[in-house]
Amino acid sequence: MSSVTCQISISLDGYVAGPNQSLENPIGEGGMRLHEWLFETARWREQQGLEPGARTADSEVVEEVFQNVGAYIMGRKMFGGGDGQWNMKWTGWWGDEPPYHTPVFVLTHQAREPLAMRGGTTFNFVTEGIDSALEQARSAAGEKNVVIAGGASAVQQYLGAGKLDELYLHVVPVILGAGERLLENVGDPTLQPVKVIASPGVTHIKYRIIR
Amino acid sequence: MSSVTCQISISLDGYVAGPNQSLENPIGEGGMRLHEWLFETARWREQQGLEPGARTADSEVVEEVFQNVGAYIMGRKMFGGGDGQWNMKWTGWWGDEPPYHTPVFVLTHQAREPLAMRGGTTFNFVTEGIDSALEQARSAAGEKNVVIAGGASAVQQYLGAGKLDELYLHVVPVILGAGERLLENVGDPTLQPVKVIASPGVTHIKYRIIR
Repeated sequence: MSSVTCQISISLDGYVAGPNQSLENPIGEGGMRLHEWLFETARWREQQGLEPGARTADSEVVEEVFQNVGAYIMGRKMFGGGDGQWNMKWTGWWGDEPPYHTPVFVLTHQAREPLAMRGGTTFNFVTEGIDSALEQARSAAGEKNVVIAGGASAVQQYLGAGKLDELYLHVVPVILGAGERLLENVGDPTLQPVKVIASPGVTHIKYRIIR
Repeated sequence: MSSVTCQISISLDGYVAGPNQSLENPIGEGGMRLHEWLFETARWREQQGLEPGARTADSEVVEEVFQNVGAYIMGRKMFGGGDGQWNMKWTGWWGDEPPYHTPVFVLTHQAREPLAMRGGTTFNFVTEGIDSALEQARSAAGEKNVVIAGGASAVQQYLGAGKLDELYLHVVPVILGAGERLLENVGDPTLQPVKVIASPGVTHIKYRIIR
């Protein structure tokens, strides 16, 4: 059965981006510290000469969250591309071959034609709101999951509207002190921890959201 | 070797007390939801007819955090007793036999004679600040640990001053939306997760703080 899920790295004090975010730097100052565990995972494996199949606790999580994904939804800021009007040449932060390999639905107020990238990623721009984006993403995903890729605002909207089935937090032991919080304006959902994976650098907690 | 530790229940959105706190209700509205797992632990065991020695994941944590404690430090609000001046008849929230069974050092601006309770708890009132309280608590604790009992402000002061060795968070899957946050005004300490215990109701993460 298809689920709507989200997996996101969060600081111990609840931020998913650092302060002084901008469309040029949507992750904010220090925000990259939240993602170092991800880079460390690959780097460490490479350094150890481990084959691709060898698994660490973190790499197991990474592999899991990319499995069975049929479509992504992301916010305007996460896609990027300048302030106000679209820069029609902007194709996202991820180069010619983005790591999504599925349809991606971008929440925006500015219409734009779909953008097909190498490797199976197509960015679709949705101006009709979160319900329409979810409907389109579900249709594209079929039996696979729809993943809310971020940023905070997109996750908040789906969680607050009771549309999210699963929230997988990667709790990174850093204190950013300022920035963009994830769990604000989301009401009082009932969450149940269903999986916890510990590693030296990060604690992964998967919550099921009870409707 | 004696350590300075803290263990505290925290909501998924970072609060250790709900909104509208007062000296009469220091835990704030909804704040008791953070501690239900603790009551459930005992209640569940009783309901199951388990003997005192039988252990659940949560009860293991509870037993652990009360072991090897030589003294506690707590903030004025946690001790309670009315606004401004002391109510000199106030003996804390915990009845005649508080659950500390050691010296407890209360951070306050208002002097008061030590208060000896049944069961080995003595409340000592420290007006000379957090360093003095820690010195006195260490002296009282000997080889055992000093525990910062709370509330948020006391923990923040010791963590921010680099005096805390260990922070054991009981991450409760509720979203309070407002209240008193724990991890504010604490600078940028280096934290390392050293122990993670998962239960259906709460995720316990112990952090070592690297000096």
